[in-house]
Amino acid sequence: MNLLFLGDLVGRAGRDVVVDNLPKLRRDLAVDFVVANVENAAGGFGITQKLLNELFAAGVDCATTGNHVWDQKETVAFIGSEPRLLRPLNFPQGTPGKGAGVFQTARGKKVVVANLMGRLFMDPLDDPFAAAEALLKTYRLGGNADAILFDFHGEATSEKMAFGHFLDGRVSFVVGTHTHVPTADHMVLEKGTAYQSDAGMCGDYDSVIGMEKANPVLRFTRKLPTERLSPANGAGTMCGVLVETDDATGLARRIAPVRVGGKLEPALPKWASALAAAK
Amino acid sequence: MNLLFLGDLVGRAGRDVVVDNLPKLRRDLAVDFVVANVENAAGGFGITQKLLNELFAAGVDCATTGNHVWDQKETVAFIGSEPRLLRPLNFPQGTPGKGAGVFQTARGKKVVVANLMGRLFMDPLDDPFAAAEALLKTYRLGGNADAILFDFHGEATSEKMAFGHFLDGRVSFVVGTHTHVPTADHMVLEKGTAYQSDAGMCGDYDSVIGMEKANPVLRFTRKLPTERLSPANGAGTMCGVLVETDDATGLARRIAPVRVGGKLEPALPKWASALAAAK
Amino acid sequence: MNLLFLGDLVGRAGRDVVVDNLPKLRRDLAVDFVVANVENAAGGFGITQKLLNELFAAGVDCATTGNHVWDQKETVAFIGSEPRLLRPLNFPQGTPGKGAGVFQTARGKKVVVANLMGRLFMDPLDDPFAAAEALLKTYRLGGNADAILFDFHGEATSEKMAFGHFLDGRVSFVVGTHTHVPTADHMVLEKGTAYQSDAGMCGDYDSVIGMEKANPVLRFTRKLPTERLSPANGAGTMCGVLVETDDATGLARRIAPVRVGGKLEPALPKWASALAAAK
Amino acid sequence: MNLLFLGDLVGRAGRDVVVDNLPKLRRDLAVDFVVANVENAAGGFGITQKLLNELFAAGVDCATTGNHVWDQKETVAFIGSEPRLLRPLNFPQGTPGKGAGVFQTARGKKVVVANLMGRLFMDPLDDPFAAAEALLKTYRLGGNADAILFDFHGEATSEKMAFGHFLDGRVSFVVGTHTHVPTADHMVLEKGTAYQSDAGMCGDYDSVIGMEKANPVLRFTRKLPTERLSPANGAGTMCGVLVETDDATGLARRIAPVRVGGKLEPALPKWASALAAAK
Ligand SMILES: [Fe+2]
Ligand SMILES: [Fe+2]
Ligand SMILES: [Fe+2]
Ligand SMILES: [Fe+2]
Ligand SMILES: [Fe+2]
Ligand SMILES: [Fe+2]
Ligand SMILES: [Fe+2]
Ligand SMILES: [Fe+2]
Repeated sequence: MNLLFLGDLVGRAGRDVVVDNLPKLRRDLAVDFVVANVENAAGGFGITQKLLNELFAAGVDCATTGNHVWDQKETVAFIGSEPRLLRPLNFPQGTPGKGAGVFQTARGKKVVVANLMGRLFMDPLDDPFAAAEALLKTYRLGGNADAILFDFHGEATSEKMAFGHFLDGRVSFVVGTHTHVPTADHMVLEKGTAYQSDAGMCGDYDSVIGMEKANPVLRFTRKLPTERLSPANGAGTMCGVLVETDDATGLARRIAPVRVGGKLEPALPKWASALAAAK
Repeated sequence: MNLLFLGDLVGRAGRDVVVDNLPKLRRDLAVDFVVANVENAAGGFGITQKLLNELFAAGVDCATTGNHVWDQKETVAFIGSEPRLLRPLNFPQGTPGKGAGVFQTARGKKVVVANLMGRLFMDPLDDPFAAAEALLKTYRLGGNADAILFDFHGEATSEKMAFGHFLDGRVSFVVGTHTHVPTADHMVLEKGTAYQSDAGMCGDYDSVIGMEKANPVLRFTRKLPTERLSPANGAGTMCGVLVETDDATGLARRIAPVRVGGKLEPALPKWASALAAAK
Repeated sequence: MNLLFLGDLVGRAGRDVVVDNLPKLRRDLAVDFVVANVENAAGGFGITQKLLNELFAAGVDCATTGNHVWDQKETVAFIGSEPRLLRPLNFPQGTPGKGAGVFQTARGKKVVVANLMGRLFMDPLDDPFAAAEALLKTYRLGGNADAILFDFHGEATSEKMAFGHFLDGRVSFVVGTHTHVPTADHMVLEKGTAYQSDAGMCGDYDSVIGMEKANPVLRFTRKLPTERLSPANGAGTMCGVLVETDDATGLARRIAPVRVGGKLEPALPKWASALAAAK
Repeated sequence: MNLLFLGDLVGRAGRDVVVDNLPKLRRDLAVDFVVANVENAAGGFGITQKLLNELFAAGVDCATTGNHVWDQKETVAFIGSEPRLLRPLNFPQGTPGKGAGVFQTARGKKVVVANLMGRLFMDPLDDPFAAAEALLKTYRLGGNADAILFDFHGEATSEKMAFGHFLDGRVSFVVGTHTHVPTADHMVLEKGTAYQSDAGMCGDYDSVIGMEKANPVLRFTRKLPTERLSPANGAGTMCGVLVETDDATGLARRIAPVRVGGKLEPALPKWASALAAAK
């Protein structure tokens, strides 16, 4: 199975590059399931029902979030009736919405997606390692789950790599989000879990993590009030990661970066295109 | 001019992959000047005079550091007599060593290297933006400096990107270090400065940021004393970034990742190899 | 009932002032139960079985801790067989020792003591508010507990005050520890819980939070390696808080600071002495 | 000379208790100079020109601030023409306003006030220790300054105590602000500088650091959007510190807490009242 993960969509630039390219890419790369982190899709802050529906229409199957999940007021209200939108699993008991879900692909495969949030240099939260461990009591790769994907929304590379090794051999794919910069450390870990420290953002990279660059620079050089940040709206780069899983074990066979459009160097996995062409 | 920057060398795996590959790579890519961050070269913690000399012998021209600069006791004593070893420029007045230096390449070009440290999610320090601004009162690209390279040792991508844009058009290359994971956002910014959020580490990526993975995972899952971390000693990946500058302006023409050995996907800039072959 | 809480004992100065004064003070103030935070009792770092026994002998009934609980190697081994020593309740499942205990006073009253750790500006941990809530499913003030005392080991005053109000009316006493400075905000909250943001330390206040002052000052003014900190060994001040509870409800009637010896202004609750004298 | 320092005024409760009590207190305690931290005076967030004038009219001679200095939009504009309002001295070069000032008392004495901000658990800033050191090149106690007072706005007790010892013998009084809780560690340090880790707030203590308590508690127990915090408007406590300096040396002879009104235990230095009565 081919799983495509798209990093934090930031503003219009991020949504546009995804909506414009995802439908064709899904076909070209023979993608079975698409997960996208949407925590910055609405003007850089949060997600609305309307924008979410546009992304589902463009081929996103499941949306994850992070610290920005509640930035739009309406989200708390609609998340309970939208099982395809996840918030971090290790949020406190009683938080609206869910942190993990089971989804069915067009070919009838079961994909479990979980959204966790890291703690190093982040807000206080309950242990994401323990939350992952608990979830894996319910879902077993190669058992009741054909693929398991974890979006680990965090800052520190040490925590992300530790989380990857912690789950190695038990899930298909651990991918980091939140830094808005793609890392080049995609690899299949020792026991078969695909890993990349950060998927990067879908957005305009002529910016400071997706935001118009003038104000963020001022925030670092002065101690004065700054206007609210707004997303950079130049050409966006779609930043994603493609993972091919083994149908029998659910573990990863290959992982490769996917980058389309905008300022970053393009990347497409040749193997996936070849496979798709052969179908 | 071709500038090669190598990210944080971590332990023996990091030193070995550099010493084994740098001499040939310097020739193949027609590199004029090599800067390497060595803050984790000695068993993961700091740098010694002996190891530094081995790296100079292998082709490193200038060594930068970061928060781990003083991890080895001898470093405070010898840094004053080793102008090729830098510590962060924005350390307090009176700190031994220097945070910037001017170096001459074999072809007689002047390269300024500066080592700054970020503040977001890092220890308290004086403003690195102001320190950079002050340094650029002394050195002018295309004037008394043929190339200017800044190693910005920091955690947060927002601060790193802001720092890049802050210096855009005034220096040849801003490269981040400290996260030990290479980013895939190498680009030439709007006004001609080459930029990459993090060079990654030279070390064994089957690890947690270069360290044997068992203990770091325990540190995230338990609240109990853990043994001292030690570097992972599997095959290392050399992670670097190559920048080609314009001889007239000192600004960047091209930037590309360089990855050799170990677990990460290899990368070499074709243009550099072609240029070298043509010489 | 009269509950006496003593803030973090730091080194020899802290132990001495407690051992020298507690026996008489217990009598003079008619104290029924003494809890002391001992996380810095052993040379400023952690606690040993031997020192703990000396404190029990001097009149401490229960010892709490915090982030320094494991600083002495032996503690992990002996905590399981010493129910009078608590570690933070919101440490991960599987951590040796307990975070709460039920104790019997000489007059047969049941006192519940819980040790929680805050998260603001502290290491990542599970939610202390949720942990407290869960514990109060087991113990009910005025029901199966005659008094309930929470040592909330934390940095931020906002988190401490929020924790106090969160438990107001459900426990006898919430006292903060960890900053090593006594606060002057002792009060009985709206619904009857006694509260003080920090008990302060038992130790030498001619210091930096109990440590010889020269090295800590250097740590703030230089970025260079500093020698290990060692406790200041001048005359110590015993810093505590006395709470009188209502025997029927278990709620607080009065709260007052107790300070004896050393550099700080002395304080003793007149009502307690009067009560003791009248007995 | 008698110096009175008042901790962070929070909202109407804080302003009212000061305006109602300061005039009489100035006379009763024979106060020569009053400094008040006003960073939360305007609805909990910042300060306006109008409110500042009311405080000056009530007897405040100089106002200090901290991280909330710019919370009201107008402050950046008027601070340049109001020398009695200080912002932290270690803000970046080019910041409007000043971080220190020289003031004349009614009896013709020169008082230097400086406002510094700490860095531990605070936003990145330049070194406050170095900034203090530089200021003391200009002002010498017992020379061109009859008294020197530093408001050190910070979180960590370790940094505050280190700052106190760093200046011991060179200034009259180092007082901390920002935690909104008064500490009971008022003392004259070894070489004659008066010190208290935090002055506490002037405001309603039936609150979370001066704010209505319901919302802050929710912020600690849930991960959901919360309404903006608003100041608690019950009866306020005025929290201050009185220091008597030696007219010849400018060093401190005595220090004592001043607490009037509201929920906290009242405190007034008997020596000051006696002195005033004797005049
Ligand atoms: Fe994001
Ligand atoms: Fe995020
Ligand atoms: Fe490093
Ligand atoms: Fe580092
Ligand atoms: Fe402590
Ligand atoms: Fe502590
Ligand atoms: Fe404040
Ligand atoms: Fe503040």
